[in-house]
Amino acid sequence: MSNVLAREENEKVATIGWAARDASGILSPFHFTRRENGDNDITLHILYSGICHTDLHNVKNDFGISIYPMVPGHEIVGKVTKVGSRVTKFSVGDIAGVGGIVGSCGSCSDCSKGFYVYCPKMILTYSAHYHDGTITQGGYSDKLVVDQNFAVLIPKSLPLDGAAPLLCAGITVYSPMKYFGLAQPGLHLGVVGLGGLGHVAVKFAKAFGMHVTVISTSPSKKVEALGSLGADAFLLSQDPQQLQDAMGTMDGIIDTVSANHSIQSLIGLLKTHGKLILVGAPALSLEVLAMPLLLGRKTIAGSAGGGSEEMQEMMDFAAKHNITADVEVIPMDYVNTAFERLKNNDVKYRFVIDVANTINCNSN
Amino acid sequence: MSNVLAREENEKVATIGWAARDASGILSPFHFTRRENGDNDITLHILYSGICHTDLHNVKNDFGISIYPMVPGHEIVGKVTKVGSRVTKFSVGDIAGVGGIVGSCGSCSDCSKGFYVYCPKMILTYSAHYHDGTITQGGYSDKLVVDQNFAVLIPKSLPLDGAAPLLCAGITVYSPMKYFGLAQPGLHLGVVGLGGLGHVAVKFAKAFGMHVTVISTSPSKKVEALGSLGADAFLLSQDPQQLQDAMGTMDGIIDTVSANHSIQSLIGLLKTHGKLILVGAPALSLEVLAMPLLLGRKTIAGSAGGGSEEMQEMMDFAAKHNITADVEVIPMDYVNTAFERLKNNDVKYRFVIDVANTINCNSN
Repeated sequence: MSNVLAREENEKVATIGWAARDASGILSPFHFTRRENGDNDITLHILYSGICHTDLHNVKNDFGISIYPMVPGHEIVGKVTKVGSRVTKFSVGDIAGVGGIVGSCGSCSDCSKGFYVYCPKMILTYSAHYHDGTITQGGYSDKLVVDQNFAVLIPKSLPLDGAAPLLCAGITVYSPMKYFGLAQPGLHLGVVGLGGLGHVAVKFAKAFGMHVTVISTSPSKKVEALGSLGADAFLLSQDPQQLQDAMGTMDGIIDTVSANHSIQSLIGLLKTHGKLILVGAPALSLEVLAMPLLLGRKTIAGSAGGGSEEMQEMMDFAAKHNITADVEVIPMDYVNTAFERLKNNDVKYRFVIDVANTINCNSN
Repeated sequence: MSNVLAREENEKVATIGWAARDASGILSPFHFTRRENGDNDITLHILYSGICHTDLHNVKNDFGISIYPMVPGHEIVGKVTKVGSRVTKFSVGDIAGVGGIVGSCGSCSDCSKGFYVYCPKMILTYSAHYHDGTITQGGYSDKLVVDQNFAVLIPKSLPLDGAAPLLCAGITVYSPMKYFGLAQPGLHLGVVGLGGLGHVAVKFAKAFGMHVTVISTSPSKKVEALGSLGADAFLLSQDPQQLQDAMGTMDGIIDTVSANHSIQSLIGLLKTHGKLILVGAPALSLEVLAMPLLLGRKTIAGSAGGGSEEMQEMMDFAAKHNITADVEVIPMDYVNTAFERLKNNDVKYRFVIDVANTINCNSN
């Protein structure tokens, strides 16, 4: 009997997901197994999985490093159904979240600080090689086995669909605000771009007590920026007069735009000692004049995510301040349509797949 | 009698300097007056004045904002000969230094922290309009009247000729090392360019206990970098193998080069969370890819100088560690030749004019 139990406990985990098979990026049902739940692992029954713009790039192999079949998804919320013998952070029944990273070297200086995302050997949640040689698969699936160090406890008071995007979009904007000393009451923050990242940046910044100006090329964003999102001001970045009036007024700017764009005028918007933080990565080189950086002791920096403790801190902060992403919840079999709409920026502001309730409907 | 004394005390200060008269940049003797010594002012009998590369740009009107006649010089060391009634920082007989700034608004956030150099209304030591409407004139002259807040006490143990360049070259590299958290034992600093700024950067960094790599396009700099300057390593920036070997090894880089150059490979030399600090200002835009900044949470920043307290701290630190610039001391009437040689980078590493002993020899 004990042998049977042991065998059962060590069994690989049969999983159903939706995978892209090639660079067409079309997703369809895909049956696969995940590794057995190890001593440091937890198994999740996935509830929600957010759709990040990076998923769209990856299924289409835009970066040239995609591995197929590919189950995307790195904004994962699920219920803990199993914990390994050494797991201390989670109990069965907890709600856990997993973001973009599921492994790292564990010994470099970044790992020692919990900054796994900056470890040179960090392992992406999908389309990457895990320690055991298997290919990682993401959250567009019903189950996930993950090392407890790469999961975060989600406060049960948070609406779980809106919490899912915090695991990528949220930490991507929360972490640099903290790391670069911008998350302080009274400071003036510019947020460039009002999409999945930008709208969450506005919410966090307001909760930090900051004065927030949304900077956008789209006049149509003004109403939503100043309305439900609660920004204090709106700056149309193509209007020279508005730019001129705002010169030298901002302590920091979070630039969420991945499309190619000029940042020279953004540097002008900064006060002396101000910081422009890039969280989107335009493909073409940015052009930067050195002199304005020198004269104002200004900073341009990039940021790709945050640390594990910071992720927990963010979730607790979000629960305290009722911060979630604004989401459109969709069934699993809507994912290909959602990708089409995402390509056209037709979503406010994040698609989230209702995995638990819909993945088994059309996935056989 | 008291009226006579008061009149004498309020007299403008007859001064002899060497001035450029036009964009030819040729300097010749020039008699002028400085303002009377005010309540907050000190008067200096100038001993030494360093020649900064900016002086060469200014006498030739390279930035299009020069005011003639122009007495250059913003690395000024002198003996205090008079102090105003409200002066608390200096006594007659002290040695004082003055750098690039002699005035500011006094009320902005930068002024409140002593960061006068970043005040939008900061007043340059020469070729600028002072509060009273007069044109400021610099240190290639025998006397200077200056607000005590823009002067620093020079420890008498420092050789005064080699101390003069610390007032510009020194603070330009010392301040960012402190401000950006690089001045810590064991950190690895790259220093790009081994000129007036770079050689002082190496000295300060070694005194901070850092591991220092000099990065240069000139193989001939290797001997001096590793020899008398005491750097730990030398990297020839045009050698792909040397660059490759050093990728991801540096906590920070101080880039002192004003000529146009690529910084993309420098960003690759940084560790995650590393910082590239520009203290030279190439005229053309720098080209920067965003992705490497994001993936390594790297920073590019500029820095133009430091605060007043920091200047004093630097001087005391320099005295403690016997740090001065390596200088070639020249007589006043050699200045035009010195400018020619400076244009050809023919100096190790800084010209300093022996003002006190030579300005009256050929200045009538």
